[in-house]
Amino acid sequence: MLEYLYPFRTYLIVSGVEKPNVMTADWVVPLSLNPQMLGVAIGHKRHTHFLIKKYGEFVVAVPTLELLKDVWTAGTVSGAKEDKLAKMSLTLIRSRKVKVPSIKECQANIECKVVKDVETGDHTFFIAEIVDATFGDAFAKGKPDLNYKFLLHASFGKRFTTNSKDVFEP
Amino acid sequence: MLEYLYPFRTYLIVSGVEKPNVMTADWVVPLSLNPQMLGVAIGHKRHTHFLIKKYGEFVVAVPTLELLKDVWTAGTVSGAKEDKLAKMSLTLIRSRKVKVPSIKECQANIECKVVKDVETGDHTFFIAEIVDATFGDAFAKGKPDLNYKFLLHASFGKRFTTNSKDVFEP
Repeated sequence: MLEYLYPFRTYLIVSGVEKPNVMTADWVVPLSLNPQMLGVAIGHKRHTHFLIKKYGEFVVAVPTLELLKDVWTAGTVSGAKEDKLAKMSLTLIRSRKVKVPSIKECQANIECKVVKDVETGDHTFFIAEIVDATFGDAFAKGKPDLNYKFLLHASFGKRFTTNSKDVFEP
Repeated sequence: MLEYLYPFRTYLIVSGVEKPNVMTADWVVPLSLNPQMLGVAIGHKRHTHFLIKKYGEFVVAVPTLELLKDVWTAGTVSGAKEDKLAKMSLTLIRSRKVKVPSIKECQANIECKVVKDVETGDHTFFIAEIVDATFGDAFAKGKPDLNYKFLLHASFGKRFTTNSKDVFEP
């Protein structure tokens, strides 16, 4: 029944410090305007789960359609078992306020520090404060530029789509 | 910095029983596959916040572009102060497993029972188990049909967009 919420935006979660990991996650949500907070639900068995628990920090990176191949790799290869980053074309760069790196090729990198985690069924929901962020041309005008093809997971599995370029005002 | 997560899907939250209320919410997220759970962040001052706290149930309804005017009304008029439903063209119908009604014109109605709530800054995050759901033609094939124009909030404010019809496979 969760699939009735789809198509749903897809992001990349960066975690870890000495040996960072990149994972695909759809289940990301804003939680508060003041302070600015967001949350992400991560499956218990994921390497990202271990790394967020260990360091208490993560970065939400915003990919566009051009990165689809890497998004798929990040969502299907385990960083605990394989050298996942070697299979991708992403460049890790230093973040501003967290030790976890950002991704150069993404249109935004939102730097997060965990303030609480809550068990929700087969996932842990990490609640975090946003401590800083960097952005690319897609956000140069302060709002998302819909000429950029932000990624949506069309449904569970190997189907993706993007936003339309159309703007509708009620 | 939250706007870097946008465009972001928009849904309608139904709450209340004797006098139900419909509110627009972007901040909805899946939380668990087994059991099926989701969460929604609601501002402290919202009438929906009061009603979810009171009844412990809500429905996440999935609007398409055709309902944009109602979505805007649901997000900008307070059900505590005005007869919000009278300003909209939505039809409330009985849900299957919760007392809170569903919306006939929406493509899905996900029936939820709250299991926990967590304070997150200026919002409360309601964590719920999905107890049942009904769906329309947009989900007749089991997955979202991208010919339907599901709504995305393009950014904060009066700008909306939809998903593309294109399917991309990595």
